[in-house]
Amino acid sequence: MSSARFNKPRPWHEMAATLVDVATGRRPAELVIRNGRWVNVYSGEIIAGTDLAITAGRFAYCGPDASHAIGEGTQVIDAAGRYLVPGLCDAHMHVESGMVTVTEFCRAVIPHGTTSMFIDPHEIANVLGLKGVRLMHDEAMAMPVNVHVQMPSCVPSAPGLETPGATLDEKDVAEAMTWENIIGLGEVMNFPGVSANEPKMVAEIAETMKAGRTVGGHYASPDLGPAFHGYVAGGPEDDHEGTRAEDAIARVRQGMRAMLRLGSAWYDVAEQVKAVTESGLDPRNFILCTDDCHSGTLVEEGHMDRVVRHAIAQGLKPVTAIQMATLNAAQHFKIEREIGSIAPGRLADFLIVSDLAALAIDQVYAHGRLLAEHGRLVAEIEPYPYPAEAKQTVKLGKQLGATDFDIKAPEGANSVRARVIGVIENQAPTRALEMDMPIENGLVAMDGANDVCQIALVERHRATGSVVNALVSGFGYKKPCAMASTVAHDSHHMIVVGTNKADMALAANRLGEVGGGVVLISEGRELALVELPIAGLMSDERAEIAAEKAAKLTAAMREVGCDLNNAYMQHSLLALVVIPELRISDQGLVDVRTFERVELFV
Amino acid sequence: MSSARFNKPRPWHEMAATLVDVATGRRPAELVIRNGRWVNVYSGEIIAGTDLAITAGRFAYCGPDASHAIGEGTQVIDAAGRYLVPGLCDAHMHVESGMVTVTEFCRAVIPHGTTSMFIDPHEIANVLGLKGVRLMHDEAMAMPVNVHVQMPSCVPSAPGLETPGATLDEKDVAEAMTWENIIGLGEVMNFPGVSANEPKMVAEIAETMKAGRTVGGHYASPDLGPAFHGYVAGGPEDDHEGTRAEDAIARVRQGMRAMLRLGSAWYDVAEQVKAVTESGLDPRNFILCTDDCHSGTLVEEGHMDRVVRHAIAQGLKPVTAIQMATLNAAQHFKIEREIGSIAPGRLADFLIVSDLAALAIDQVYAHGRLLAEHGRLVAEIEPYPYPAEAKQTVKLGKQLGATDFDIKAPEGANSVRARVIGVIENQAPTRALEMDMPIENGLVAMDGANDVCQIALVERHRATGSVVNALVSGFGYKKPCAMASTVAHDSHHMIVVGTNKADMALAANRLGEVGGGVVLISEGRELALVELPIAGLMSDERAEIAAEKAAKLTAAMREVGCDLNNAYMQHSLLALVVIPELRISDQGLVDVRTFERVELFV
Repeated sequence: MSSARFNKPRPWHEMAATLVDVATGRRPAELVIRNGRWVNVYSGEIIAGTDLAITAGRFAYCGPDASHAIGEGTQVIDAAGRYLVPGLCDAHMHVESGMVTVTEFCRAVIPHGTTSMFIDPHEIANVLGLKGVRLMHDEAMAMPVNVHVQMPSCVPSAPGLETPGATLDEKDVAEAMTWENIIGLGEVMNFPGVSANEPKMVAEIAETMKAGRTVGGHYASPDLGPAFHGYVAGGPEDDHEGTRAEDAIARVRQGMRAMLRLGSAWYDVAEQVKAVTESGLDPRNFILCTDDCHSGTLVEEGHMDRVVRHAIAQGLKPVTAIQMATLNAAQHFKIEREIGSIAPGRLADFLIVSDLAALAIDQVYAHGRLLAEHGRLVAEIEPYPYPAEAKQTVKLGKQLGATDFDIKAPEGANSVRARVIGVIENQAPTRALEMDMPIENGLVAMDGANDVCQIALVERHRATGSVVNALVSGFGYKKPCAMASTVAHDSHHMIVVGTNKADMALAANRLGEVGGGVVLISEGRELALVELPIAGLMSDERAEIAAEKAAKLTAAMREVGCDLNNAYMQHSLLALVVIPELRISDQGLVDVRTFERVELFV
Repeated sequence: MSSARFNKPRPWHEMAATLVDVATGRRPAELVIRNGRWVNVYSGEIIAGTDLAITAGRFAYCGPDASHAIGEGTQVIDAAGRYLVPGLCDAHMHVESGMVTVTEFCRAVIPHGTTSMFIDPHEIANVLGLKGVRLMHDEAMAMPVNVHVQMPSCVPSAPGLETPGATLDEKDVAEAMTWENIIGLGEVMNFPGVSANEPKMVAEIAETMKAGRTVGGHYASPDLGPAFHGYVAGGPEDDHEGTRAEDAIARVRQGMRAMLRLGSAWYDVAEQVKAVTESGLDPRNFILCTDDCHSGTLVEEGHMDRVVRHAIAQGLKPVTAIQMATLNAAQHFKIEREIGSIAPGRLADFLIVSDLAALAIDQVYAHGRLLAEHGRLVAEIEPYPYPAEAKQTVKLGKQLGATDFDIKAPEGANSVRARVIGVIENQAPTRALEMDMPIENGLVAMDGANDVCQIALVERHRATGSVVNALVSGFGYKKPCAMASTVAHDSHHMIVVGTNKADMALAANRLGEVGGGVVLISEGRELALVELPIAGLMSDERAEIAAEKAAKLTAAMREVGCDLNNAYMQHSLLALVVIPELRISDQGLVDVRTFERVELFV
């Protein structure tokens, strides 16, 4: 494998004279690709018999014959009629969802043809604030591909209903806009806040617009009436939360980009792409993205190649689908002079593809350098050193014991009517259930027969020792066990779900010990552990290892009786106090239908 | 008519909260348009039953029902099913070609639906340098429509072959890029210089790229080989000099925008648009423009409405042609969040159109204000005061006499073989002719029988008193006469063409007197005069008056025997020492095939 140090290509304007020399034949190129089929995302054509000449990490010449750019030192590759496709862009995504670092994410997705990513480090921001954003920003800069950072806009997601590890405001946004690698504002999830002109939202968007950057959107509602129009007028420029063709149409008509999402658990391309394939809308304002991918998806199914393949399977012309994953994204973020096409001056990010509709990627080049071949990295990327403070974020303040999970019953009662969070398989919303719970020795007892066990939100940012206890139904645990996770959207405290309070204490303490992650304990025995020491969110190991550990966790959950799809994700979303109906936060139970705190007992 | 003072709308980010209030119905709009057919350049659709709500000069709501935005003070207009079209953009043009000020140009074109212009004040720059650019930049800012300025890149056009009134270099470019209303670099005409890495070209382009602005191109050659590829690699982002479909295709494939031009004398749309209508290229990278329009064209035929109409007549779908005159240009200049569409937040520039294919424009709105109706301005624009120094640019240094135009013959000769500039009707290039000229009294005599008369280049920037005399053929003058013009591309000295040296002297002196323009004298009598006191290039009168005077000039030229098409333009291009074959400059005769100075006598 080649060296692990990557120098960023110098700007086009510094290298223009060199590129001109190569294009005109006065200077040999470093690399020439001969006889490819140029997938031209500007013209929408596929042009056979194309040569590319590359120097200083950029395309110098793209045309029928680059013989004049070949000299003694030029490496010449015969594309033998295969397709030359621009490197793929993921226009909106969260690295943290892969439970790995930016470096590991890149290692996993480069072989799948992704050479540009627009990442929103929203999760680490909730734990470490602006410092966390900066860490991922700096790691992103060290990559051999283009990783642009969107400044998280909604930290916390639900002010007043949860206590994150840190908060961000408009001053932080203004500061981040001065950083080299900030491409815009991350998804403005507080859509009711935008429509209501909440000052923080107005100010953050204004700071982004003043800086000439792109304001990312997130309008997670089927309401296309005045609230939607208010959101658009407030400034967000894209949206990836649409699910229906009418959502995509509405967004594009308003001058937004419709970002169509195919993530590990998001399947929003097929319906929405009908806006193009059936309603005939101009495809230029449609963009593909993943939003969230687990490491398992990356390792087993792919990344943007998977999305493009899927989009083609929905009836898009391959060139159109590729435009949606390249030029359209580049134009949206105003960097089409850098990425998103095979054209002179641009960064030489491209794929050699042997089957276009199947997107069979033989080679992946970025910045003119071969990074992957036949699905395997050929250039190694050094691990990025995260500082100690980023790995010491699980602060429990004490060893927890089983009694920390006691739920005291009302004085003298034999049973009590309680609110129970009801998990719904394959859906993000929960149900706000009410159930009669038994009481034993003055404490609320779990009701395994009715699949009701305990859930606890353990404060972990400020070592307050606070534990909020409540009830949950739907996991189907049949054995004494407990699962704890410091991935607990969006404030990322620790969620512990268990049928056994001793196991709950053990699980929580274990995560305190390893600095965060996910653990499953049954009768004192550790069935699975995924260590996520970076901010309690990300592994510092290889993506393959993280994926393996995550797979082991899923298997272990089945072993103790849970066979929900995406059970781990369901677990991690139980504190997401922006999605109805009932959730838990460090401040108590929250009814997300009314955005109000409620008591455990009815 | 309404008031003449126009306040620029405040930036979107300052008005976002107001727009959101209007969009959601919490605050009434200033203006609501009801029941239009929304020509949606984002989706490519035409959407019947659309309402628009407008406030603070911007669209707040675009959708099916703006009732909720109507309050007591709201003006409500019924579009009665007519089309709502974004205001048209001219993506590249020179105001000076209209021989009027920016103000007068706007007065002329607003009724034709043009609400955004990208102007390159290349001509005034050759006379007044950066000061001249600044004057037009500031005048542009005072307009009720959007006039963005491209910083001229090639002043002089032909360094070493002519002496302009001023020069611009990369330091001037860097300075201009800090001005509020500079949108990019004007057409980089020195295309051999770009391909050859001439330091000034490289540096000017680099300054523009560093500033994140758009580099305008001008590649006036049919050669699509390495020289073309070198030009693209050097950085220019568009080109309007293509004439063949293959030119447009080549540019778009390289990631440039193909600007298709229909000016007073340019007819480059019909051929090149076949790249879309016949070859099926993605139309998003095609843009319409005029480049040069005389006041007569503006007054009689129109402006961008004429271009769009023509493009539709070539077989484009109306929406596609409109995209090429709106959104495509806005995206190219990276200001699609401001102009180029009817969408929330954008400036409320739009047309109410009763017939889409014929582009029959009933009303023109810009910044939410009605500016023109049924082809007539309804909001007056105050004349912009140009300072005295901009009007004192014709410096002859002396009264000229007939003898200043004497061409001394070689000692003792009876006739002499001389180079003669051969005008070609309807073409910009000239022929380098050689003819035997008679000699009378030791002076070269004119040869009316063979249509050869005299041409003189009179220095007018530095009062040197220098007169370069030579010969020209092709105007067809049959009477004793002389025509002088201070519009003399690109250095804009004074060109005098005459069959009579006394008239030549009178004509030159007359322009000295009035501060520049065009004059036709015959036997001492002034047949026509177009005063152009601003830099010797632009009238300070109304466009209608300038057009009338220009028409009178054309008629007078016919009267003395010249019936060339565009005879005045032919006259004004005779010093354009960048277009082959033979031209005159203040430094002598120039053979533009070799870019060398040549003697009059062979």
